Amino acid sequence: MKKIKYNLIRQDGNARYGEIETRYGTYETPMFMPVGTRASVKGLTPDQVKECSSGIALANTYHLWLRPGEDIVQKCGGLHKFMNYDRPILTDSGGFQVFSLAKNKEKDITEEGVHFKSHIDGMNLLLTPEKSIEIQNKLDSDIAMSFDECPPASADYEYLKNSIERTLRWAERGKKVHNNPHQALFGIVQGGPHKDLRKYSAEKTVEMDFDGYSIGGVANDGESKEDMYKAIDYSTPYLPKDKVRYLMGVGEPIDILEGVERGVDIFDCVLPTRIARHGQAFTREGKKNLNNAQYIEDLRPIEDECDCYCCKNFSRAYIRHLITVGESLGGTLLSIHNIRFLIKMTEEIRESIKEGRFLKYKENFIKKYNSKKK
Amino acid sequence: MKKIKYNLIRQDGNARYGEIETRYGTYETPMFMPVGTRASVKGLTPDQVKECSSGIALANTYHLWLRPGEDIVQKCGGLHKFMNYDRPILTDSGGFQVFSLAKNKEKDITEEGVHFKSHIDGMNLLLTPEKSIEIQNKLDSDIAMSFDECPPASADYEYLKNSIERTLRWAERGKKVHNNPHQALFGIVQGGPHKDLRKYSAEKTVEMDFDGYSIGGVANDGESKEDMYKAIDYSTPYLPKDKVRYLMGVGEPIDILEGVERGVDIFDCVLPTRIARHGQAFTREGKKNLNNAQYIEDLRPIEDECDCYCCKNFSRAYIRHLITVGESLGGTLLSIHNIRFLIKMTEEIRESIKEGRFLKYKENFIKKYNSKKK
Repeated sequence: MKKIKYNLIRQDGNARYGEIETRYGTYETPMFMPVGTRASVKGLTPDQVKECSSGIALANTYHLWLRPGEDIVQKCGGLHKFMNYDRPILTDSGGFQVFSLAKNKEKDITEEGVHFKSHIDGMNLLLTPEKSIEIQNKLDSDIAMSFDECPPASADYEYLKNSIERTLRWAERGKKVHNNPHQALFGIVQGGPHKDLRKYSAEKTVEMDFDGYSIGGVANDGESKEDMYKAIDYSTPYLPKDKVRYLMGVGEPIDILEGVERGVDIFDCVLPTRIARHGQAFTREGKKNLNNAQYIEDLRPIEDECDCYCCKNFSRAYIRHLITVGESLGGTLLSIHNIRFLIKMTEEIRESIKEGRFLKYKENFIKKYNSKKK
Repeated sequence: MKKIKYNLIRQDGNARYGEIETRYGTYETPMFMPVGTRASVKGLTPDQVKECSSGIALANTYHLWLRPGEDIVQKCGGLHKFMNYDRPILTDSGGFQVFSLAKNKEKDITEEGVHFKSHIDGMNLLLTPEKSIEIQNKLDSDIAMSFDECPPASADYEYLKNSIERTLRWAERGKKVHNNPHQALFGIVQGGPHKDLRKYSAEKTVEMDFDGYSIGGVANDGESKEDMYKAIDYSTPYLPKDKVRYLMGVGEPIDILEGVERGVDIFDCVLPTRIARHGQAFTREGKKNLNNAQYIEDLRPIEDECDCYCCKNFSRAYIRHLITVGESLGGTLLSIHNIRFLIKMTEEIRESIKEGRFLKYKENFIKKYNSKKK
């Protein structure tokens, strides 16, 4: 029986360089995890994902519960075999999707769990802490998440206070039924932008002794960057140094840097594939929109110095053509570039921490990234 | 200056095993050519196409003329560099698309060329034999097609008689302006299912001495299989043995076999990628629809004996999941399988011709392919 193990190797301020040992190999952190919502990183084969030097990939419990169902995935030998990804996989709890995707946003939060209607067919469904863990056990991911309540960005202090108490009770219930010897289980810290609530939530969650800790409630619609950074600032000081820390749903380059500075190890986000399908590419000088006419005859790759399959083989002119005529290859190539961009960035972050120059790296990166902004 | 060269190596009845020498290497025939309509085989990277053991790929002059425009492709170094495909490329003349895609099917055929409205924005356009060749010269494909009139399947004898005369005049005009030292130019035989018209069209076209010959007017909506086979039967006897023969737009497995039996060397069709996007796979036992519930828990690959990336790595259950939830990877994987299926089939056809057992191969293939039909 081997779950995961985090080794902190070097610290530079609060920024951490470390490694996660898993049954699918050992991977360095800080790390960006590509998202395979429905057991597929949109538009990419698992080999294309791996060619981006991916480590852990993420899959969504909510989506896989609805289709094809966790029993099917289990019968197919678990998520790794199902989607043919032989590196570690993390599953979320489904909590965020229940709160954000429920049909008509209607949901009824009770102590038992969350009653809601499926976004696919309107069916009445109930997701509980036990059910979430049971699904994740069957999916057989390497890292499972506790089922938490995800309050909206607008939630007030009183709401959040009650919500973190419920999330703690739910975490306890999930931990009790967790039953997969391969699978690590993470607790989730909530508490909005409030210092005392984050401290309380972190301390109580750590008391339960999870295999790792997530910082939740930071990628909600309408949340300010300031509140996101506060949420991290107020959580990480209370998390143990020898456990991995995961900032859920965050993948903007600058937010990754801000997270690393505050002691976060792993990140995930649909951003690189989502913006790719709309023709956008991450570059060192900010996002570029390949729909723009300026790229019609541009023979250069998206980035000269990038080592991704897209940049090594295709011009901006070709990608612009694919995007404007609606060929799916355009989104695939940009997704490869964008995922590789974030992973490459974390590789550089790791080097900078090892060499004790993370803040300098961050400063230079941000200066260049914002240089083309008016 | 090297155009293409066809070497007939072995004949088995009328079935021909041979090879085409091009500036991008020598490839054996009979061959199936994947279609990259808008300089992209839908959903596949050029490396994924090549992994299917592809030889010549096809691109559509009409689509590339409209977007991004032949001048852009030329500035990008020609089609090979633009789409990063370093094997031979064949372009069609645009004739078929003008006749089938013109907005509201409205078109005005004059001696000069075809006046029609763009299917994208309704703009008035004129495609002439000279313009078609000029575009193809700039695209810098290895094989260009003469601009022909593509009469509907319903056209009567008198219509077809006038049409082949016009197609001959257009072929002459195109040949006169053709001006790309790398590029071979093919003539197209028309004449519907009429023996005398096909003979006349073939003989007159051959008199003009093209680098190869296409059999046109065989993939129209509403055309019967019988008429298609007649069109081939009545054309190939008049084509020179030392030039390659191309049956345009045909890719159903059985039609490929029927074409090979009648002396055809190369085939193309959008079928493998089009049916893939709808969840259909070619198999030795006919087409399978992966949407069907019977595949929900089916752990087998689409075909046990298939050597494609899809069959080596993924189960029917996973592909069914991708197709039913609408993940584009499902179409990509099925496209890879379907393209490899047709290419593998042509590899087997070549072996059977070399060994003088083509008809036996064909008989066995068709028997198995139709075995599951009611």
